[in-house]
Amino acid sequence: MVITISREFGSGGREIGKRLADALGLAYYDSEIITMIAKETGMSEEYIKNISEKGVYPYTFHFAKSFLNSSPVPNSQIEVFVKQNKIIKEIAQKGNCVIVGRAANIILKEYNTIDLFIYADMKSKIERCKLKADENENLTEKEIEKKIIEINKNRKKFHNIISNEEWGKKENYDLCVNTSSIDIKDIISPLKNYIENWFRRN
Amino acid sequence: MVITISREFGSGGREIGKRLADALGLAYYDSEIITMIAKETGMSEEYIKNISEKGVYPYTFHFAKSFLNSSPVPNSQIEVFVKQNKIIKEIAQKGNCVIVGRAANIILKEYNTIDLFIYADMKSKIERCKLKADENENLTEKEIEKKIIEINKNRKKFHNIISNEEWGKKENYDLCVNTSSIDIKDIISPLKNYIENWFRRN
Repeated sequence: MVITISREFGSGGREIGKRLADALGLAYYDSEIITMIAKETGMSEEYIKNISEKGVYPYTFHFAKSFLNSSPVPNSQIEVFVKQNKIIKEIAQKGNCVIVGRAANIILKEYNTIDLFIYADMKSKIERCKLKADENENLTEKEIEKKIIEINKNRKKFHNIISNEEWGKKENYDLCVNTSSIDIKDIISPLKNYIENWFRRN
Repeated sequence: MVITISREFGSGGREIGKRLADALGLAYYDSEIITMIAKETGMSEEYIKNISEKGVYPYTFHFAKSFLNSSPVPNSQIEVFVKQNKIIKEIAQKGNCVIVGRAANIILKEYNTIDLFIYADMKSKIERCKLKADENENLTEKEIEKKIIEINKNRKKFHNIISNEEWGKKENYDLCVNTSSIDIKDIISPLKNYIENWFRRN
C-alpha cells in the first residue's frame, strides 16, 4: 500500500498525509526524504530543501531529465534530483507508506500507488496558514496569499518540468479532495476506508 | 442533505448516484426530472430530454440566462430550461436527495450541497459503455469512443453556457472521484461515510 499525496500549499495535505499514515499504520515520508538525501550526499538539508521541490533553473532540470536513469552526474543540483528519485523508489519498494509531495506520483508511475490531490480555495488556504502562527506570525493576509501563490507556482513548475502530466489536473490522480469547508480530522476515516477498498481491488 | 453528481458519460456517475441514494436513504433524481418537466409543460419527454442536458443553440441559452428568474418565456426550449431550474430548486428545498447531472451544482449554488464530479480514463469509459450491451451492442469501440466524446462535449458546453464555472474543473466540486480502476460497489461505503461527515460540519 503506497499512497502519494500532492497538495496545494495551505490545503492541509501534509496533515492528511500524517493522519492517514497514523490511521493506516504506514510509514510517513515528507521532509524525511530531505534528511535521507543529505545523509547520502553529505550536502546540507537547507540546500537540498531548496532544490528538492522548489525547482531550480529549468535548464538544469531538462538536463537532469535525460540523465534520470544513468549514473551520478557531477552537478550537485542534479545529484539531489537523482538521489531523490532513487530514494522515493526505494521507499515505495518497501511499501506501506505515505509520501507527501516531491512529484512521487510521477516518479512512481509504474508502481501500484493511489494518488491523491488535496486542494482548497484561497480563503481556506490563508486561514490554514494563519493557524501555523510560528511560521507566518509576521505576515499580513496579503503577504500570506502572495506566499501561497508563489509556492504553488513553484510546485506546478517543478512538476511540469519533470513530467508531461499537469500538476493538479484531476485526470492524473485517483481522488481529488477539496478541503475548503471541512475539518481534516473529519475526513480521515472515510479516506482510510476509501484507500483500503481501493487496494483490495488493485 | 443534498448531493449533486456531475459526471463524464461512461464514468459510472449515475450508478454512484443511485447506490449512494440507496445507502443513505435519499431520493434519487435523474431522468425523473424530465418526467416532472413533461408533466408541468405537457411537452414530450423525448423533446425535453434532448434539450435538458444536451445543450441547444447557444443563442437561445444566452437568452434564457437573462430570463432565468423571470416569468415563463414563450420559447419552448427556454421553458424547459426555466422549468428544470425551478424543479431542481424545489427538489433541493425538500432536501435529502441525490441529483445527477443537469448542472444542479450550479443551479443550487446558494444551497448547502456537496458536489461530486465523477470521471475516468477513456479505456474505462468505453468498458463501462460496452457493459450496457442493450444500448451499445451494435457499436464498435471506435464508435463508442466517438459517442462518449460527443456527449461529454455537449455536457461541458451546456454547463459553460449557463455558468462561468468550468465543467469538470476540480475547484468547482467538493470531491472528484476517478473511477478508472475501481468497482463502483467498493467505493459506496467510503463515499457515504465521507458525505455524512461532510454534512455533520456544514
